[in-house]
Amino acid sequence: MLVRLIYASRAVSVTRDSLFDIISQARNCNPTSGITGVLCHGHGIFLQALEGGRAEVNSMYAKIMKDDRHKDVTLLQYEEISQRRFGGWTMGQVDLGKAHTSILLRYSEKAELDPYTVSGTVSLALLEELMDNAAIIGRV
Amino acid sequence: MLVRLIYASRAVSVTRDSLFDIISQARNCNPTSGITGVLCHGHGIFLQALEGGRAEVNSMYAKIMKDDRHKDVTLLQYEEISQRRFGGWTMGQVDLGKAHTSILLRYSEKAELDPYTVSGTVSLALLEELMDNAAIIGRV
Amino acid sequence: MLVRLIYASRAVSVTRDSLFDIISQARNCNPTSGITGVLCHGHGIFLQALEGGRAEVNSMYAKIMKDDRHKDVTLLQYEEISQRRFGGWTMGQVDLGKAHTSILLRYSEKAELDPYTVSGTVSLALLEELMDNAAIIGRV
Amino acid sequence: MLVRLIYASRAVSVTRDSLFDIISQARNCNPTSGITGVLCHGHGIFLQALEGGRAEVNSMYAKIMKDDRHKDVTLLQYEEISQRRFGGWTMGQVDLGKAHTSILLRYSEKAELDPYTVSGTVSLALLEELMDNAAIIGRV
Amino acid sequence: MLVRLIYASRAVSVTRDSLFDIISQARNCNPTSGITGVLCHGHGIFLQALEGGRAEVNSMYAKIMKDDRHKDVTLLQYEEISQRRFGGWTMGQVDLGKAHTSILLRYSEKAELDPYTVSGTVSLALLEELMDNAAIIGRV
Amino acid sequence: MLVRLIYASRAVSVTRDSLFDIISQARNCNPTSGITGVLCHGHGIFLQALEGGRAEVNSMYAKIMKDDRHKDVTLLQYEEISQRRFGGWTMGQVDLGKAHTSILLRYSEKAELDPYTVSGTVSLALLEELMDNAAIIGRV
Amino acid sequence: MLVRLIYASRAVSVTRDSLFDIISQARNCNPTSGITGVLCHGHGIFLQALEGGRAEVNSMYAKIMKDDRHKDVTLLQYEEISQRRFGGWTMGQVDLGKAHTSILLRYSEKAELDPYTVSGTVSLALLEELMDNAAIIGRV
Amino acid sequence: MLVRLIYASRAVSVTRDSLFDIISQARNCNPTSGITGVLCHGHGIFLQALEGGRAEVNSMYAKIMKDDRHKDVTLLQYEEISQRRFGGWTMGQVDLGKAHTSILLRYSEKAELDPYTVSGTVSLALLEELMDNAAIIGRV
Amino acid sequence: MLVRLIYASRAVSVTRDSLFDIISQARNCNPTSGITGVLCHGHGIFLQALEGGRAEVNSMYAKIMKDDRHKDVTLLQYEEISQRRFGGWTMGQVDLGKAHTSILLRYSEKAELDPYTVSGTVSLALLEELMDNAAIIGRV
Amino acid sequence: MLVRLIYASRAVSVTRDSLFDIISQARNCNPTSGITGVLCHGHGIFLQALEGGRAEVNSMYAKIMKDDRHKDVTLLQYEEISQRRFGGWTMGQVDLGKAHTSILLRYSEKAELDPYTVSGTVSLALLEELMDNAAIIGRV
Repeated sequence: MLVRLIYASRAVSVTRDSLFDIISQARNCNPTSGITGVLCHGHGIFLQALEGGRAEVNSMYAKIMKDDRHKDVTLLQYEEISQRRFGGWTMGQVDLGKAHTSILLRYSEKAELDPYTVSGTVSLALLEELMDNAAIIGRV
Repeated sequence: MLVRLIYASRAVSVTRDSLFDIISQARNCNPTSGITGVLCHGHGIFLQALEGGRAEVNSMYAKIMKDDRHKDVTLLQYEEISQRRFGGWTMGQVDLGKAHTSILLRYSEKAELDPYTVSGTVSLALLEELMDNAAIIGRV
Repeated sequence: MLVRLIYASRAVSVTRDSLFDIISQARNCNPTSGITGVLCHGHGIFLQALEGGRAEVNSMYAKIMKDDRHKDVTLLQYEEISQRRFGGWTMGQVDLGKAHTSILLRYSEKAELDPYTVSGTVSLALLEELMDNAAIIGRV
Repeated sequence: MLVRLIYASRAVSVTRDSLFDIISQARNCNPTSGITGVLCHGHGIFLQALEGGRAEVNSMYAKIMKDDRHKDVTLLQYEEISQRRFGGWTMGQVDLGKAHTSILLRYSEKAELDPYTVSGTVSLALLEELMDNAAIIGRV
Repeated sequence: MLVRLIYASRAVSVTRDSLFDIISQARNCNPTSGITGVLCHGHGIFLQALEGGRAEVNSMYAKIMKDDRHKDVTLLQYEEISQRRFGGWTMGQVDLGKAHTSILLRYSEKAELDPYTVSGTVSLALLEELMDNAAIIGRV
Repeated sequence: MLVRLIYASRAVSVTRDSLFDIISQARNCNPTSGITGVLCHGHGIFLQALEGGRAEVNSMYAKIMKDDRHKDVTLLQYEEISQRRFGGWTMGQVDLGKAHTSILLRYSEKAELDPYTVSGTVSLALLEELMDNAAIIGRV
Repeated sequence: MLVRLIYASRAVSVTRDSLFDIISQARNCNPTSGITGVLCHGHGIFLQALEGGRAEVNSMYAKIMKDDRHKDVTLLQYEEISQRRFGGWTMGQVDLGKAHTSILLRYSEKAELDPYTVSGTVSLALLEELMDNAAIIGRV
Repeated sequence: MLVRLIYASRAVSVTRDSLFDIISQARNCNPTSGITGVLCHGHGIFLQALEGGRAEVNSMYAKIMKDDRHKDVTLLQYEEISQRRFGGWTMGQVDLGKAHTSILLRYSEKAELDPYTVSGTVSLALLEELMDNAAIIGRV
Repeated sequence: MLVRLIYASRAVSVTRDSLFDIISQARNCNPTSGITGVLCHGHGIFLQALEGGRAEVNSMYAKIMKDDRHKDVTLLQYEEISQRRFGGWTMGQVDLGKAHTSILLRYSEKAELDPYTVSGTVSLALLEELMDNAAIIGRV
Repeated sequence: MLVRLIYASRAVSVTRDSLFDIISQARNCNPTSGITGVLCHGHGIFLQALEGGRAEVNSMYAKIMKDDRHKDVTLLQYEEISQRRFGGWTMGQVDLGKAHTSILLRYSEKAELDPYTVSGTVSLALLEELMDNAAIIGRV
């Protein structure tokens, strides 16, 4: 059973190194699990979509919840899907600190990544527009 | 929570200067609030769409209602939205006194701006068609 | 409140002059009322669509009903609309006596204008197809 | 082809006798035509629904428009129907001057009959609620 | 044109007298305007629904926004309606400080009145359930 | 923002005492959080629905995932809701080991609680039927 | 494949005997064919619904079309159905010359059986209402 | 009232001349009736769609049913339509004996014309695809 | 994953004993598999619905297909379901040879069990109506 | 009656020769039956879609179920269709062992053919995407 899970979290420490750690880990641990997805980050906030088998995605989410470098881990959306939307990346990446403010503004109250104030549907729409605008980089 | 609010008002005094004042103010006060939108004017009537966070849009609308240069301030439409339609302008502007009569006629009883006689849905449709016809000018 | 009214009528006398009179009048009386529309004629039958404010369209229809040159004036369709379909003509005109038989046949039992035997929806579809085929002439 | 036509009008003279005349006539002229319906009146305003064959209803409406005792005759709704809603009365009658203010208020801006400010759909809903509340009197 | 407007506000001073003042005023000013509705209060928060003509409801809302005894006045829902939901009260009243905690909990994060954290649709649902449970008191 | 989260888990040790511990804890920790819900258990498996504010439900779910007495914690359904379905219990309880086999069979491959083989929608339907059949016990 | 076919016809001779002949035949020829249905008659007009296998219903309809006692045989409705509506009668019968004028009027321009002026959907609705009002007599 | 009728039949004698007779007749008898349509033939089977006024189409179908050169005449589909699909031919023609096997196979159990085993909807779809593939020849 | 499978078959030998054998076997082999359902028989034809896990239902169907006492085993309907319709019987039974002809006729061309001539949807509807009419007997 | 049946199976022996046998047979036995379809294979698993007449497809499926070279034959989807999706191949073929991993991953938990863990709808979507990507080879 394929599912998609989207969550938000805050980095406990927003030094460049700690961010790099989290991102590296996210990108490296998936290959054997069949999980694909996208990781957005900006202003110390993460917005990540995970797609894959129900057991695998849950196992991955458990690791993230127990990882001390994240706090305020909040589930935004979860649904059983018939096909992946983000199947093209083992874990695509978007650095929202750099650009894309007009896309952010379309889905947020301010031109900042803030998934905590909007519904999960809005966060999914933001991720899809980033993908449609080729804003995602990563290994296919 | 993102919302869109559309209202109509009449200028108390329709001298060129007073109109200019209202428009200037509308265009200048938004940047810090995350509010975007469009302001149409013609024949001493204003039709304005505001998009942004619920608290910010309400705060902005309260200022407009207390501004003595407007009268007959009337709410036309208000809805919670998942994405902005007018996110491209801090406050786009359309001077309907000059042109666009064929677009006006499609949505009005006469070829004049008169949001007071039609439903809010019609006013939103008018704003969207003006945008689709590149009739809106302003800083993005 | 914008409405669209479609009716059919028969000319009492189908001389060329009387037809010309009716058509001239239809095309001339609208400008100040904000009414737009289309007038089809053929085989002594008229099919006319009027769009505009509810009061204005009703006032216009009252004049037509009291005009002795029409008989069998029959309302075919009436609806409140959010935008005009025939806003491009003060009163566009189609002479169905000349051409367009294939379009007529698609919506009629015979290749003649006969709105009296079909539903109002069919008559509106006929008018829209005539417009889409650039069969309407008139001042915009 | 069965149709339903709803219109509003104002009595030119609101004396008791003139109202009585209009109502009597409305109730008496239908039997041979197959037309059924309901006539509401209050505050010098009439709201009438006519149901029957398309030709018959149009013929009846033409008579009303030419009757000098009505003014501001305004079409509110017109549709082809597969069954009558008001088939139980040759012409049912509701005197809104007397009672039913709570029903009026549900569909009007004030507790008065005022079909001129609302959409045709609302007027039909008012008539249906009056019928459902047994407010209509008349010969079946 | 009938509309329904729902807003939330906080009392500037939550003494018993000041609350009583606000409620009295809300209940007394409507009769001539054709406005009907419901006012809920609890924990210093107000949730009010206003129904009536578009101009009248806007005029009423303008007065509330300029009234110094309210703060954080926030529009929650606004729509054009074909019939009133709260037409039975010039201004019905619910004191949520006293009871109804199970109804509150169904629509809120905590068993308290807090329209600021939920969507306008949820606040309307809360008002409708209170009405269906006969929790509203007032003059019809 | 109200959400509902449904998950399944297995007890690490299925002694009577360990089960009692888990259930007691589930029922006791909610009052201050505004969380309500239902806990089913049978054959060493738990199926729990949590309803409440998004932050509170996520915080509760994080505690469960870190609790060593559960394993195979698997998210089944998550959605933003406009009203609670299980608002009547701080934490209702169903012991599926005892009865209700006909209800279980309607939603499962065998007459046992096994949320791991069916979709989240089916698990929600099972919980709703248990509620409709008054199978849930607990403090309201 | 089950189908339902509804047609109208006129009796060539409307003597009492000829009508009786047609009705008798209709009622007698079905048992072996699996055809069921209803036959209405009034004012020399027949309205008949036939339900059964596609081949059988077509064979029956062919016989009717070749029967010199009918004229103006006109197909009104034909559709593949998943269950019969008139399965309770080998051929139920309604004599509309006698009663049921209020039902007739609901679906007709005049209080007479006249399927030639309305759509097939309306004729089916008339038959269903006659059945719901227990107006059909016959052997089950 | 416009209708479309689709039927299948088998030629009693499948000599080349008898087929030619049937087709010639089908193509020649329509002009005065306003009927348009398409006639497919192959393997001694005919599939014909007739569009036009309800009375005219029924009259035409009666002639076909009484024509001894057809047998097993079976109605497949009949509906009231708002516009013709096959208005471009007085009677278009497709010889399925020659080609189009891939189109036939898409809608049939074998690559042969066999409308007797499928629903009327499928036969209409076959005719529409033949038209979309320019497989129909004939005078417009 | 729950599925429902409906098939028809013919008994190779329709002696009373052979029928009894088939029915006994159908009723006895399910308990350990979690399969529930209904078996109808009449005129030497079987119509059976099986509900349960996907693997189990397929395994059961394989046994039936290999059983020499059945022939013309034909799948009629198969769908993934969220709840069972026939969960109340390990294998309910209906002897259609005895009664229920009016129910049979509603869904069949003749008053006989003949699932081979109708769509799978119709066969499911027949089974549901038999259940709703308490025609099914068996151990719950 | 056209149907589509999709099933999965595992090869009992996955030597190259045994696979070749199964595929050859699948491709060769259809021509006279009017059956068309697609056969995917990879990792010793088969996923096959069969389209054609209901009797023919069932007969074919019976042969497959009795063929000892397959095991775990599991029906995934079955529906009555109005047109074929895979009518272009007597039996198209896709070797998923070679390529197409990105397509597989979009519809599967891992980048492998595994129809046993997903719904039948997902398997149909996979087949359609393979077709849309021209991944199917075979004789038309």
